[in-house]
Amino acid sequence: MSTKPFEYAAKRDYAGKTAAIIGGGVIGASWAALFAASGLNVVVSDPDPDIETKAHARIAAALPTLVALGHAPFDIAERVRFVDDHAHAVAEAFLVQECGPERPGFKQGVWEVVEGAAPADALLCSSSAGIPASLQQTEMRDHTRLLIAHPINPPHRMPLVEVVPTPTTDPEVTARAAAFYDGLGKVTRVIRKEVPGFVANRLQAAIFRECVALVRGGVVTIDELDDIVTTSLGVRLASSGPFLSMHLGGEDGGLPHAIAQLGPPMELLWETLDVPHFDPVTRELIARQADQSYGAWPIDQLARSREAKEIAVLNALAGT
Amino acid sequence: MSTKPFEYAAKRDYAGKTAAIIGGGVIGASWAALFAASGLNVVVSDPDPDIETKAHARIAAALPTLVALGHAPFDIAERVRFVDDHAHAVAEAFLVQECGPERPGFKQGVWEVVEGAAPADALLCSSSAGIPASLQQTEMRDHTRLLIAHPINPPHRMPLVEVVPTPTTDPEVTARAAAFYDGLGKVTRVIRKEVPGFVANRLQAAIFRECVALVRGGVVTIDELDDIVTTSLGVRLASSGPFLSMHLGGEDGGLPHAIAQLGPPMELLWETLDVPHFDPVTRELIARQADQSYGAWPIDQLARSREAKEIAVLNALAGT
Repeated sequence: MSTKPFEYAAKRDYAGKTAAIIGGGVIGASWAALFAASGLNVVVSDPDPDIETKAHARIAAALPTLVALGHAPFDIAERVRFVDDHAHAVAEAFLVQECGPERPGFKQGVWEVVEGAAPADALLCSSSAGIPASLQQTEMRDHTRLLIAHPINPPHRMPLVEVVPTPTTDPEVTARAAAFYDGLGKVTRVIRKEVPGFVANRLQAAIFRECVALVRGGVVTIDELDDIVTTSLGVRLASSGPFLSMHLGGEDGGLPHAIAQLGPPMELLWETLDVPHFDPVTRELIARQADQSYGAWPIDQLARSREAKEIAVLNALAGT
Repeated sequence: MSTKPFEYAAKRDYAGKTAAIIGGGVIGASWAALFAASGLNVVVSDPDPDIETKAHARIAAALPTLVALGHAPFDIAERVRFVDDHAHAVAEAFLVQECGPERPGFKQGVWEVVEGAAPADALLCSSSAGIPASLQQTEMRDHTRLLIAHPINPPHRMPLVEVVPTPTTDPEVTARAAAFYDGLGKVTRVIRKEVPGFVANRLQAAIFRECVALVRGGVVTIDELDDIVTTSLGVRLASSGPFLSMHLGGEDGGLPHAIAQLGPPMELLWETLDVPHFDPVTRELIARQADQSYGAWPIDQLARSREAKEIAVLNALAGT
């Protein structure tokens, strides 16, 4: 058990190495900011002729967050450069972080090129949330090199990186990749099987399913549900995971006692969980409530408010 | 939408009024501490001859938490007294908070007595997590008075109170009860239908179901899963609820756009969510991993660590 999972003191274990980022969109630019803040040199490969302007704006927006989380300020212009050719981008890469479109064909093509152009010991990591590395590596000759390194968006702010190897990934490669993200101050966990959605997104889907069912059933509005979650489950799950929470619910008997006591009523609740669908009526209901709940606030303002809260929570947890 | 759901400045709107607490166990003592810290006089009714010693120890343990969350220190001995008779306890009560055993028969008997002994305008609230007020009020003459006020344990620390009226509860009673808990600095939300588990525990059940399935399937250990949750979903859901998070994921298009984009892949994930059972193999697996993960730490130490984190998170959120 990690008694102290967060450690945001700026780490520079990988300073001076070169990371190539394939795709400079929201996720790619966020990785670029984090890598540059950790002292790496970054090459972003993206065919968009305006990528440099767009990505620099995103990186600049990430800088105050990185500083708030304990990173030293850094000179963006010095550390990030842009090319429009993947092979060129990865030629001297210590690590390749793929952040392109979520289409298997795109990723398969990228890795075919990268495998031929990157150093033989470069770490090859995809940020994909949904396309397992097994499906991405079909055009590669070597099936021991590729893995998923899936961040929670945005990676410069959220701690978790899910590393998901394929059944054929060399365990030494997996270990080197995990050490790399840990070395940036991330919390890296290796997922033991390539299940759809990996772990964090499966849990998000599980909770969101019941959220939609409750709203669809008229039990609460989306606004009431949001407040219920932030003031109960959210605070609890930021502080202790589901199993530790259950362990503490079992008092002196711990988790086995908690499951003996709370398991049977929970199984009964499981039987009552409904399976909603995003049918037109449900989408219309949610859209109407979203307008009522959030319509008065510009998205940017809501996003800044959430970011301030997440930084405050992360720093509060890092200090305990 | 609540842009600022927490407000921990000590409130004393109800100072000087009398609250009766039926059952002085873990939940009852926690309510007693919160009520006393808010300036109420508290009468605890419990047949246990040692209740005074036990409850005073629990109330004393809650005091540092209450002070850390912004309440003024208070004189426990002056504000909390103990009786062994429900009718006597409620005679001058502004509010009755029932915290007894989770058995319908017990609660039905309590309310039959309380209805005859409490002032006609006393608020009658059950802390039950699982027995709806409709089922508790069967022996009462007046079916307009009773409701659930379900806290997240412990109520002196966690913000949420779920107020769940029956279909026959007088809306004016529901409004007065909600105002009372809000007046103590809690975040009160009224649940619109008496569904099993109300809202927070249904969501907890939904996420825990998938947690058990992932551990049972060998995708992660309980320890890895706890760390994955605290460093991703936990931080996010403490800062913004599920629907607001989804709204922000939709960028300029907001929630409708997010559901158009992310809804179909999420529905596919829903189809892959497994339904585990607490069968002997699963319980043995979890017990073994619990011993490996938590066995080295005394429960008390883990509980104190979690409490410190929750207080830090709550105060961080209250400050943003």
